[in-house]
Amino acid sequence: MNGAESLVRSLLASDVEVCFTNPGTSEMHFVAALDHVPGMRSVLALFEGVATGAADGYWRMARKPASTLLHLGPGLANGLANLHNAKKAGSGVVNIVGEHASTHIALDAPLTSDIEGIARPVSHWVHSSTSAVDVGFDAARAVRAARTAPGQVASLILPGDTAWSEGGAVAEPLAPPAPKRPEDELVEQAAQVLAGPDSLLLLGGDAMGEATLELAGRIAAKTGCGLMSEWASARAARGAGRVSVAKVPYPIDLALEALAPYRRIVLLGARAPIGFFAYPGKPARLTHPEAEILELANAGADLPATLDALVQAVGAGGAEARLAKAALPDLPPLGSLTPESLAPVIARAIPENAVVVDESVTTGRRFGPAMAGAAPHDWLNNCGGSIGYGMPVSIGAAIACPDRKVLALISDGSAMYTVQALWTLAREGLDVTVVIFANRAYQILRGELTNVGVQNPGPRAIDMLSLDRPTLGWVEMARGMGVEATRVEDTAEFARALDAGLSTPGPVLIEAVM
Amino acid sequence: MNGAESLVRSLLASDVEVCFTNPGTSEMHFVAALDHVPGMRSVLALFEGVATGAADGYWRMARKPASTLLHLGPGLANGLANLHNAKKAGSGVVNIVGEHASTHIALDAPLTSDIEGIARPVSHWVHSSTSAVDVGFDAARAVRAARTAPGQVASLILPGDTAWSEGGAVAEPLAPPAPKRPEDELVEQAAQVLAGPDSLLLLGGDAMGEATLELAGRIAAKTGCGLMSEWASARAARGAGRVSVAKVPYPIDLALEALAPYRRIVLLGARAPIGFFAYPGKPARLTHPEAEILELANAGADLPATLDALVQAVGAGGAEARLAKAALPDLPPLGSLTPESLAPVIARAIPENAVVVDESVTTGRRFGPAMAGAAPHDWLNNCGGSIGYGMPVSIGAAIACPDRKVLALISDGSAMYTVQALWTLAREGLDVTVVIFANRAYQILRGELTNVGVQNPGPRAIDMLSLDRPTLGWVEMARGMGVEATRVEDTAEFARALDAGLSTPGPVLIEAVM
Repeated sequence: MNGAESLVRSLLASDVEVCFTNPGTSEMHFVAALDHVPGMRSVLALFEGVATGAADGYWRMARKPASTLLHLGPGLANGLANLHNAKKAGSGVVNIVGEHASTHIALDAPLTSDIEGIARPVSHWVHSSTSAVDVGFDAARAVRAARTAPGQVASLILPGDTAWSEGGAVAEPLAPPAPKRPEDELVEQAAQVLAGPDSLLLLGGDAMGEATLELAGRIAAKTGCGLMSEWASARAARGAGRVSVAKVPYPIDLALEALAPYRRIVLLGARAPIGFFAYPGKPARLTHPEAEILELANAGADLPATLDALVQAVGAGGAEARLAKAALPDLPPLGSLTPESLAPVIARAIPENAVVVDESVTTGRRFGPAMAGAAPHDWLNNCGGSIGYGMPVSIGAAIACPDRKVLALISDGSAMYTVQALWTLAREGLDVTVVIFANRAYQILRGELTNVGVQNPGPRAIDMLSLDRPTLGWVEMARGMGVEATRVEDTAEFARALDAGLSTPGPVLIEAVM
Repeated sequence: MNGAESLVRSLLASDVEVCFTNPGTSEMHFVAALDHVPGMRSVLALFEGVATGAADGYWRMARKPASTLLHLGPGLANGLANLHNAKKAGSGVVNIVGEHASTHIALDAPLTSDIEGIARPVSHWVHSSTSAVDVGFDAARAVRAARTAPGQVASLILPGDTAWSEGGAVAEPLAPPAPKRPEDELVEQAAQVLAGPDSLLLLGGDAMGEATLELAGRIAAKTGCGLMSEWASARAARGAGRVSVAKVPYPIDLALEALAPYRRIVLLGARAPIGFFAYPGKPARLTHPEAEILELANAGADLPATLDALVQAVGAGGAEARLAKAALPDLPPLGSLTPESLAPVIARAIPENAVVVDESVTTGRRFGPAMAGAAPHDWLNNCGGSIGYGMPVSIGAAIACPDRKVLALISDGSAMYTVQALWTLAREGLDVTVVIFANRAYQILRGELTNVGVQNPGPRAIDMLSLDRPTLGWVEMARGMGVEATRVEDTAEFARALDAGLSTPGPVLIEAVM
């Protein structure tokens, strides 16, 4: 067995069964091994950021890692931004990068680069295999690293000769370390904090699932503490029948206002809130200056067990969480598409058990309340802030959950970074409805110009934030990549297109002109 | 003056007058400074790889650096692959990356990453400014680094507070070190080698200009040595009236064959030829095992002066170089589009003084001989091997040379990596004719499967190299980004479309279905 085949067999043995790839010459043996070994689904992307973002989305919904297969340093570089997002989301990814044969590296060929150096800033674990004999075991180690809570980016670099040489062996899966729950004493301390006035339980990571949110809801019902979640959650259970939790807002003034009432804060899978950026004259820490912050459990802890213990500690075993009632907002009157008129249409259209991938940036900033009473769904945010995550994550989510509808809400500026994702959606026939919010600007930056203290930006500055010269034709671009598409300009057209998209299998794009 | 304004003014003082940008919040002060300071042309890209590739193309044609302006680590990451290509091409780039305000970095915000770590693998020079007071001088140092021969990637990282704080000062330009020419003794030694039998003068870098090629041609005429160039040149003068030089072929067997006759090789701006990849059972060094190789001057040396000295040393002062005669191939008969039928149509259409950006990969592999007698032009290759370089480089070339036609020959697979370049072509109204060779496959990898020893690849392996499910609609994608486009399927349609494209100002895309 050559090293390439041992890689594929070892990944399968460790329950990695999807590979998002954009391969090159140095990965040809791995590609060939896909033929010899049944069971690995190989998904081709035309740009590596699509592959890495898809692996992120797959983890979020499948709760196990997919692998990538990327071509040397530049291929890895193209996938780096979405690996950054995956790392910040706590998504486990087995990130496989081909390398020149080991004899060739010293010759400094055109494609030679410092692959480990490129991988390190976005990886928790980096390793280069040195022999075909080791590839299987190295793969098992990479999977273990990827599955280490909350989920890690594990980059495995495979020189060509480790693929084509004989001596490969299939490795047994390696169990990741079990996540821990905090000491009883700390749980007791958190319980006392939450029982006091002006207290907040701030949730993140795995605490955002349906069952864990219900536990948090019981704690809030018993103690009267506030409940909030981080500004972004990798995956949050939302909609009717779930505990509805407001996010820490993105705009700094709103965030300061939302957190101002709380003097005692318990972190459970969340980090202490800080500004997305530094703004001159504004604090970097968003909590009240006198707030005491207790970290009960970080995102890598056993959050369900921690919540169970906390429920007991506050005596909320018999308490009843407040669950969101099914309540759809009224349809907006016929009119133009605005953040306010889009929200109710989307809330009414979200199918039961849908996966909503949110890269709506400024347009969707206030969507939250409207969605609280929608059909139950999972809502996925970008945790790393690098735009271009949405369509790729939708691919991974759709492959992980073939029986669920995926609704991707994406800003036009963001969608362009990984626009090649449309082709993979078409090729794989994935059941994803993509809504592009076409405001034809980097709208967020217009606000940020003022926030960072720029006075009276002139026309040349504004021009750098404008996407209207020329306007982007999303319908044409989508069709060019094989995705059916429609352009809508008012609320009624949008509602019709959204219902049609969500009731048709396969990918559809809706360009919502704002 | 704040740091941002001192940056723009210092870049202008150092003769950097174009900025290719995709900015974010941390760069808003630099964007704002563009309004206050006249003279800097700011070109917006919708993906950072377009910006960095454009800077590469600009250097190649303008012979001075442009700057980029990228958003934090992920923005840099998206531009990394084309910085890799720029580095390998010896292109000078002032690569400016915004960073969080220095007080914010330790907080590990969502977009925080190790920017220096990401920059280092593709940069010759990396520096983070620490104060607004230093920004101007740091910019001058970055330009000096970028202008150090043959041209370097200089990454300057600017925390937000260095932009918005007062205290900025405009820096005087700093002269880069002058490139050196080799000692007389080495020149003499090279002259003796070339005067012997079976000798080859292998050219690269700046030796590929019209005047330097003419000198090399005189040396060949006098000594009888062979003349070849590296497999890729950042910029080579070609066409009628120039010395025509064959490239070392990309396919390893052809390369071995082409270099086999030579036992004595002098390198002048070139590196000793090695395989693009390692192939099992084939040598990595492409020259004859007994060949003696003398490095006369590397790409950073003063190659024109070295050639002058070499002309004298071989006594070729009065020799006459063999110049390519104007000779256009016949038009091919009406028929389908193949590498063989495309070449003569392109050769006949190349306008006088055109810039041809070549990312034609398999399709264009044998274009060389047909172009030798075309109208004089510059031909630009990808020196780093990371595909997605072509359309971005065309943007930079067109901005550097507004009076010259740019013809971009791009494979469909390659074009997808930086497809967002089309929008910038439209926005800036650049005079670029893009030909997409739509063979609907990663054709090169089909060959490489066999080259690396994969026997009988199966359908799933082949499927990973195929772009025909669905086919890419280049006309639709181009129109979606504001570029006029046409699809052609035979030689007559192609000839008509090419002539029309090259005689119309502004960008046009031709999808050549193969």
